[in-house]
Amino acid sequence: MPVYRLVLAYDGERFAGWQRQPGLRTVQGELERALAVVARVPVRVQGAGRTDTGVHALGQCASFALDAPLPAARLLASLRGLLPEDVTPRELHRAPDDFHARFSAAARFYTYRLGLQACAPLRRLRWDLPCAVDPAAMRAALPALRAAEDFRGFATREGAARGSVCRIRELELVEADGELRLHIGADRFLHKMVRIITGTLVEVGRGRWGPGRVAEILLTGDRTLAGPTAPAHGLFLRRVEYPEHQLTAPPAEPSGPLD
Amino acid sequence: MPVYRLVLAYDGERFAGWQRQPGLRTVQGELERALAVVARVPVRVQGAGRTDTGVHALGQCASFALDAPLPAARLLASLRGLLPEDVTPRELHRAPDDFHARFSAAARFYTYRLGLQACAPLRRLRWDLPCAVDPAAMRAALPALRAAEDFRGFATREGAARGSVCRIRELELVEADGELRLHIGADRFLHKMVRIITGTLVEVGRGRWGPGRVAEILLTGDRTLAGPTAPAHGLFLRRVEYPEHQLTAPPAEPSGPLD
Repeated sequence: MPVYRLVLAYDGERFAGWQRQPGLRTVQGELERALAVVARVPVRVQGAGRTDTGVHALGQCASFALDAPLPAARLLASLRGLLPEDVTPRELHRAPDDFHARFSAAARFYTYRLGLQACAPLRRLRWDLPCAVDPAAMRAALPALRAAEDFRGFATREGAARGSVCRIRELELVEADGELRLHIGADRFLHKMVRIITGTLVEVGRGRWGPGRVAEILLTGDRTLAGPTAPAHGLFLRRVEYPEHQLTAPPAEPSGPLD
Repeated sequence: MPVYRLVLAYDGERFAGWQRQPGLRTVQGELERALAVVARVPVRVQGAGRTDTGVHALGQCASFALDAPLPAARLLASLRGLLPEDVTPRELHRAPDDFHARFSAAARFYTYRLGLQACAPLRRLRWDLPCAVDPAAMRAALPALRAAEDFRGFATREGAARGSVCRIRELELVEADGELRLHIGADRFLHKMVRIITGTLVEVGRGRWGPGRVAEILLTGDRTLAGPTAPAHGLFLRRVEYPEHQLTAPPAEPSGPLD
């Protein structure tokens, strides 16, 4: 059956996260519902990142196998019509038969947005900090994170259960338009890792701890030394990276009865 | 009685605009309600721009006279606590006794955000265009607007009733982050002017009309030649400009019983 790669954005506010759960509104659930309408049979969808309740996505990736009665462009248009307003399907491509949004992913890239001054229109899309922070102190903690391998100190206990080694690919704290943006990319992330790193950096920024605290958390792997988990609504799954050969579609797009 | 200048942001979504109206939730109404709690007497507030239903503000300006029992910094903190989450008071300053947010204003600056591709998390803060547009064609229409004086063709009939001459101070169409931003500033604006200009530029951008259409509307003053009014939720009142002498507070801040 043909396999597809879907790039999508969503507003996490009214979702109980990505992952399908009985009785809850989830992004995976909405996608599977819409695809079942198109396919007229149940469709299973895989996601690259299982974002938590309230977390947004600009470039989440999903994969599914579907005997599509339509070419990709029209299938995408159908999904646009069938999905609710808080989910935007952005791109749809045929993928190799062994493509899997989660297992094929080489890296995920997130951005956490911190408001330096409250601003009502943006309140759903960033965490407005309740106190002043020193970006220089926060940046002083980044080299230790860039060089680190084991992030168990920055994860929930369950999140670190299946290994806690991550390779950081990108880590920058950028100031723009009255906010700080933490851009972070890695081959994998542990549960709540970006939000615990953010919460810790904010404690460093407000002067509660020195930047060396981050190295101490990395060394000891002790979650209790880290800061609180930053709120979900400031976090965005920005994009997912795949090896080149996983992006190349099979030679011919199958033609369907409606071509 | 001491006069204050308040700079505030708000999310227009759940407001029936700026202006107080019986039975409706308005920004002016919420501000006056909060100030009455502080002052323990009714307080009248003036706004620099009477934004319509659904229009946002990043830097609206309001003025009011108040026998404040608190210095400005604490009055601002009180307002933060008393106002709902979709209004953010940003700055509060003592102003000259003759300061009036609307009549003292020298210029208003707006930004209209157009999404080039739909993106669910941003859907409340910009108009996601339903079609492709050519920014170069839209830009070709800007010189005529910059040079124009009479904007009656870009206003509602009632909006042009009390004169239709405006001096454009800023007009740029900037492409950034997958969106087009129309930055426009003028000494005054007619009712719905920015949204009708935007709606017209979008028609030019999608190729329905040539850029010369804008000059024709300016020449004839014929609203029926202009495009549809762009949706309110893409529009932001960005800032209000005052003459320097209107920003200077009187020599001494009065001290109150709680100082």
